[in-house]
Amino acid sequence: MHNHTMSRRHFLSAAGGGTASAWIPSSPRGYTAAELRQREADGNLAGVSKWDLDTPALCVDLDVLEQNLATMKARLAVTKIASRPHAKTHKCPPIAKLQLASGSIGICTAKVSEAEVFAAHGIDRILMTTANVTPGKIRRAMQVKQKAAQFVQAVDHPQNARALSDAAKQAGVTADVVIDVAVGTRTGVPAGERALGLAKLVDTLPNLRLRGMISYDGGAQHIKGFAERQAQALERFQPSVETFEQMKRAGLNTDIFSCGGTGTYNIMHKAPGVTDVQVGSYVFMDCQYIEIGSDEDDEVFGDFTPSLTVMTTVLNSYFSGSLTTDAGAKALTLNKPGPWVIGEKGFAYNAGSDEFGVIRYDAASREYAVGDKLELIVPHCDPVVNEYDQIFAVRKDKVEAVWPIAARGRSQ
Amino acid sequence: MHNHTMSRRHFLSAAGGGTASAWIPSSPRGYTAAELRQREADGNLAGVSKWDLDTPALCVDLDVLEQNLATMKARLAVTKIASRPHAKTHKCPPIAKLQLASGSIGICTAKVSEAEVFAAHGIDRILMTTANVTPGKIRRAMQVKQKAAQFVQAVDHPQNARALSDAAKQAGVTADVVIDVAVGTRTGVPAGERALGLAKLVDTLPNLRLRGMISYDGGAQHIKGFAERQAQALERFQPSVETFEQMKRAGLNTDIFSCGGTGTYNIMHKAPGVTDVQVGSYVFMDCQYIEIGSDEDDEVFGDFTPSLTVMTTVLNSYFSGSLTTDAGAKALTLNKPGPWVIGEKGFAYNAGSDEFGVIRYDAASREYAVGDKLELIVPHCDPVVNEYDQIFAVRKDKVEAVWPIAARGRSQ
Repeated sequence: MHNHTMSRRHFLSAAGGGTASAWIPSSPRGYTAAELRQREADGNLAGVSKWDLDTPALCVDLDVLEQNLATMKARLAVTKIASRPHAKTHKCPPIAKLQLASGSIGICTAKVSEAEVFAAHGIDRILMTTANVTPGKIRRAMQVKQKAAQFVQAVDHPQNARALSDAAKQAGVTADVVIDVAVGTRTGVPAGERALGLAKLVDTLPNLRLRGMISYDGGAQHIKGFAERQAQALERFQPSVETFEQMKRAGLNTDIFSCGGTGTYNIMHKAPGVTDVQVGSYVFMDCQYIEIGSDEDDEVFGDFTPSLTVMTTVLNSYFSGSLTTDAGAKALTLNKPGPWVIGEKGFAYNAGSDEFGVIRYDAASREYAVGDKLELIVPHCDPVVNEYDQIFAVRKDKVEAVWPIAARGRSQ
Repeated sequence: MHNHTMSRRHFLSAAGGGTASAWIPSSPRGYTAAELRQREADGNLAGVSKWDLDTPALCVDLDVLEQNLATMKARLAVTKIASRPHAKTHKCPPIAKLQLASGSIGICTAKVSEAEVFAAHGIDRILMTTANVTPGKIRRAMQVKQKAAQFVQAVDHPQNARALSDAAKQAGVTADVVIDVAVGTRTGVPAGERALGLAKLVDTLPNLRLRGMISYDGGAQHIKGFAERQAQALERFQPSVETFEQMKRAGLNTDIFSCGGTGTYNIMHKAPGVTDVQVGSYVFMDCQYIEIGSDEDDEVFGDFTPSLTVMTTVLNSYFSGSLTTDAGAKALTLNKPGPWVIGEKGFAYNAGSDEFGVIRYDAASREYAVGDKLELIVPHCDPVVNEYDQIFAVRKDKVEAVWPIAARGRSQ
């Protein structure tokens, strides 16, 4: 709690960038998403401010987003590995296209239903990081492969590899696969013998093309403090590195050695052989990532700047030291730390109620009235995005586009 | 933790009803929602089992749902108050229609965007329990009123009452309003003087029609143990009762005195004047409500039976005492207690990962393999519903209909 408060205050007072906007009074409009989609279609978005949006509204600041993309590109250029951003974070084809345009070698998806959406939007370089284990999903993955020639999918079990090969044959394709090697016990085949055996099996199956391996350590991404995060991430990754080297020595294809996330983007290149990092949150950032600290600042991870925010409206100010807003758990999720109110260092925002946010405070920078707007940095970007149908793309507080979150709800 | 485990085990061993299905092996299909919508349109749903669904899939057992509706009707008949179910729970017009058909006097919505959806689906008797405080939302509320003649909206501030009256005039309607009287400090006008003053003001404003008051105590619903819940709910409600009596004595319209929820549905009739309860979760039930206890059983609230479940698939079984599934926080939310696996008393399901569920166990009723299906009781029904685009309506394990969650994502 102490650290959380410290780092939040530090961040909120130090924050520059597009998101640290001052409070702006409630607007006479309150455009709905449907109204703005219509205005966009009519070429008539000019002048609509994010403060004019009906709330809760999910916004992304384009200047900040582009800065985050440029930062990732520049920093990875030094480390000689690539980014293959995880699209489960944004579920939004226009953002995937910006990532590919800024040098990413492809995108990742967690679910086949997401891969279907991105392939339907013309994105070809997709790596699906979860194994498809049911006949229906396997069949659909082969259909994605028919559409997106560079589609690669994960496999973590011999029986599954055989099923993939059979389905590929039936679909008339050769399926590109990577071995998913476990770090921890969540997904993947255990490193070592079994992973190597699986890679060898894949290499022999008629309709599969082995492309290398993936190995994601979800638990490492949010370890606080860079030194500790680096030490643990690399130590936990050691069995994966050994497996990769065994695959290489066995003469197997090792084109792809993909791993890591936003928390380890500047760590994983130190593991030999790694080709790319599956960074997701760096485009948006969130309270959880800000708190993990960086190699330059143990308290604040400031390599990337929050671009994703939720606009909310004050609904009730009757009660001393308390404000109620219209953004609760259905708008912000229950992730901790709770949302941060931009411009207010002393606000504790509780999104625990489904429909309402409750702010407790001792001191505020100004007096708030019913109808006033607040802008929030989100607790954890991925699941917040999944609550909305669109992101309002904003530059200098003006809405430039309404981006459908085309893969929202695609958890299958 | 002890209590949680106790009550869960108690429940899972005692559970009858449609949800306590035995495990059924993985199916060769895995129908997507799109495929089933097509089959439904073609009149060809016959024979599709819930175990055949692509996962994660949200299902409602119709026999259990109907039983819950009948139970609410029968129990409220004794207490002489009505139900006005909160549609924020299901966001699903077909369920609202079943509720109205089973004797409910109307439905509630939390947001104007929800009211728009239900009005568009021909539902007329809508009480919106949150005040509309921005010009945009006020204008839209008047449009709802134009469409749904029995639309009633909450007001909790004099300035807001005047704005409503002006907007009603502009829209050419007389807006029906209820005073939202606070219990606690989340929403509503404080009870007593200010509430009464607001009611008197509403009564004088030209385009408003005062209909009474609402007063919801969110904090009371999940108090564990019936006696304690009853004592606290009625004590906290006392200022609302006094306000209601003051309104009555002042000769104001008190047609509506709406309050309560599933946790207090059989308590609030003891407060004088109450006309109806805004019950939501009773149609679905969830782990949170099961744990609050009832007047018959201090550990398990068994008045209603869980009808809402999520079907999930085992993705990984490599690791001893652990299973990974495809339903994580985006399919189940982070609410506690975590989901319960039907038929498995010893499973601890952690939905903390965005994309995956992780089950830890010492003992299982059988050995699980990759591809096997599990059925889960959800932690907290309202926000889980908000993660899906449709509910599969199931009877005796067969899908009878695919119900669009038409107000999903309508948090505005």
